[in-house]
Amino acid sequence: MIQLSGRIRQLQASPIREILSVITRPGMISFAGGLPSDVTFDVPDFTGMSSQFLQYGPSEGEPALREQLCRELRQLHINCDVDQVLVLSGSQQGIDLMGKLVIDDGSLIALENPTYLAALQAFRFFGAQFTGYDHDHPEKLIYGNEAPSLCYVIPTFQNPSGHCYTLQERIKLAKTCMENGILLFEDDPYRDLMYEPCDRRPVCSYMQEGSWVYQGSFSKNFAPGLRLGFLVCSKDLVTNLTRLKQAADLHSNRLSQYWILQQLQAPERTGRIEKLQSHYRARRDVFAGILNEFIDDLADWQVPKGGLFFWLKLKQYVDTGLLLQQAIEHNVAFMPGEPFFHSPDNSNGSYLRLNFSHATDDDMYKGISILADLLRQLQS
Amino acid sequence: MIQLSGRIRQLQASPIREILSVITRPGMISFAGGLPSDVTFDVPDFTGMSSQFLQYGPSEGEPALREQLCRELRQLHINCDVDQVLVLSGSQQGIDLMGKLVIDDGSLIALENPTYLAALQAFRFFGAQFTGYDHDHPEKLIYGNEAPSLCYVIPTFQNPSGHCYTLQERIKLAKTCMENGILLFEDDPYRDLMYEPCDRRPVCSYMQEGSWVYQGSFSKNFAPGLRLGFLVCSKDLVTNLTRLKQAADLHSNRLSQYWILQQLQAPERTGRIEKLQSHYRARRDVFAGILNEFIDDLADWQVPKGGLFFWLKLKQYVDTGLLLQQAIEHNVAFMPGEPFFHSPDNSNGSYLRLNFSHATDDDMYKGISILADLLRQLQS
Repeated sequence: MIQLSGRIRQLQASPIREILSVITRPGMISFAGGLPSDVTFDVPDFTGMSSQFLQYGPSEGEPALREQLCRELRQLHINCDVDQVLVLSGSQQGIDLMGKLVIDDGSLIALENPTYLAALQAFRFFGAQFTGYDHDHPEKLIYGNEAPSLCYVIPTFQNPSGHCYTLQERIKLAKTCMENGILLFEDDPYRDLMYEPCDRRPVCSYMQEGSWVYQGSFSKNFAPGLRLGFLVCSKDLVTNLTRLKQAADLHSNRLSQYWILQQLQAPERTGRIEKLQSHYRARRDVFAGILNEFIDDLADWQVPKGGLFFWLKLKQYVDTGLLLQQAIEHNVAFMPGEPFFHSPDNSNGSYLRLNFSHATDDDMYKGISILADLLRQLQS
Repeated sequence: MIQLSGRIRQLQASPIREILSVITRPGMISFAGGLPSDVTFDVPDFTGMSSQFLQYGPSEGEPALREQLCRELRQLHINCDVDQVLVLSGSQQGIDLMGKLVIDDGSLIALENPTYLAALQAFRFFGAQFTGYDHDHPEKLIYGNEAPSLCYVIPTFQNPSGHCYTLQERIKLAKTCMENGILLFEDDPYRDLMYEPCDRRPVCSYMQEGSWVYQGSFSKNFAPGLRLGFLVCSKDLVTNLTRLKQAADLHSNRLSQYWILQQLQAPERTGRIEKLQSHYRARRDVFAGILNEFIDDLADWQVPKGGLFFWLKLKQYVDTGLLLQQAIEHNVAFMPGEPFFHSPDNSNGSYLRLNFSHATDDDMYKGISILADLLRQLQS
């Protein structure tokens, strides 16, 4: 019997990856993943790329891409130099690196409750204990608790709740982190997917001191198959994060880095993002209409101002695992709410996370009506 | 002051990545990296690829690529099914995943001494203690020691020594691991770069029982910028390694996976590898001639039967760190031997690792004559 590491006991399957393996079945209507719509994908063209891009590259990322990102981050009011910018193999990698950087067995991590479940999974693996971060009461981060070593948040179109922090909430969070020496880790994959105006200024841009990491992704605004993201961090963290990146995969894929830089500098970029926003806005509005028609009496929700999800709180308790099992038998997939909470128990109530970006109109209609029927049966 | 994890104290810079940042300086003659020659690189062409490849993909890798790899691994006598094959974002990722899988603070890991320094770096980060594995005396793995939880080896064209295990050495290692419940981790990035016939059958193919991981890379036989590798493992490890892969980066770059599959199935593949071998064999032979001319009285070495390096043992002690500093001032870079040993101290003697695949004939000549001069000055 091979001796595995202690942390392997904390290694759980990602429920979302498990469900993703089902939703590729033919005929499946999926509200489960955060899969962007593939109408917006362009197949890359490397004509004219130097074959030098096939050689090993720098761990920090391509210099020209880092400079482009640095310019864009400064426009978001983040105070940074190019050497604070690291290219990542998708933002999941940023979560892994941050887990390695700060989490020992028993380290206290604050995060929104609910939050992105693959962050819970990665942090738990390194031995984290969790405490909830409530944007209405940032002072609770430290009152009555030891201060957490890290606060992980998704302030813009939060996954799964869809909440977008107000200006006040952003400033209060930065202030709390600065005053209490808490490392702020801001994850911002959805910022381009905005359908109504809201404040999106990064919380990290208000961190005049202290330690912080802001990360972004090209999975939602370009294409997830490229596996590319980036982070920018306070100067005290650069050396360690660069070494962690080296040890994880030497450097990120250079084809993706080359292609994303072309895309970021393309004149049609703004038009492309606007097209993406109208496309998703229209999907969201169709979905909202269908929810109103079928589920109005069964759940409460807010229409999200951005992102890819509706977050439904069911009016009565339902075993959402059982609901999922039945739904999959009817070729409908969704994400149960429990795994998004750091301490899954019934006290949070029953929630469903429904993605609106992937299914066609007809499939949305059909899928939601099936879900509503199943819900009614389970609640009766 | 932010509280970092305990393991960050073990986080050291990779000397090779630090040196790589110097060798891109114009005019630098580099014997430092394991950079494959770029004469063999083809710029990828994605004409005809479905835009579906830009969507999220499976954590385990593209099914068609895994099937192809499984067929090839069976031809190497590795007993496996397709679900034991995982695609990696380069084989450095395999080292990171294996560190996560088995290493706790104080875990004992056996490895060749010297060995690949980025493996030392990654394992040390997770808290490993090291013991040397000697292919002449596999029984020493357990006599007088507790059994290590992992034995990490590069049996074919070892980095840095260039040694290729004999059939006997391969069988003895597998037997020792099986009899003592030691997890065997076989790293095989150089197998295609063979210049003289030698036994290359994977040690894992002799593991009729027990736990094992065999990994390969496309960095040396195709292109490192694609950041693609793979592993195959005994059935008991599949679930944990898949989950670790999920948590690390969700899945590997799909452009690279698509392109590598085309390359593996291309009719010109065999010819391409043969061309690669003759190219490198010729580079090696030129390099050997230059070494004989300039360094014969200063060091001992074996002409490697494969791989990318000469490993020189200096006849007298030299501070190779100081030598490197002086060499870089003369625009010549190489790798000092110390970081390849798990306990760097003078007792190992002084070594240089010299890559022969990257420099031109003229640069080889010039660079080695400069190194020889500096060595003579330091030894006088």
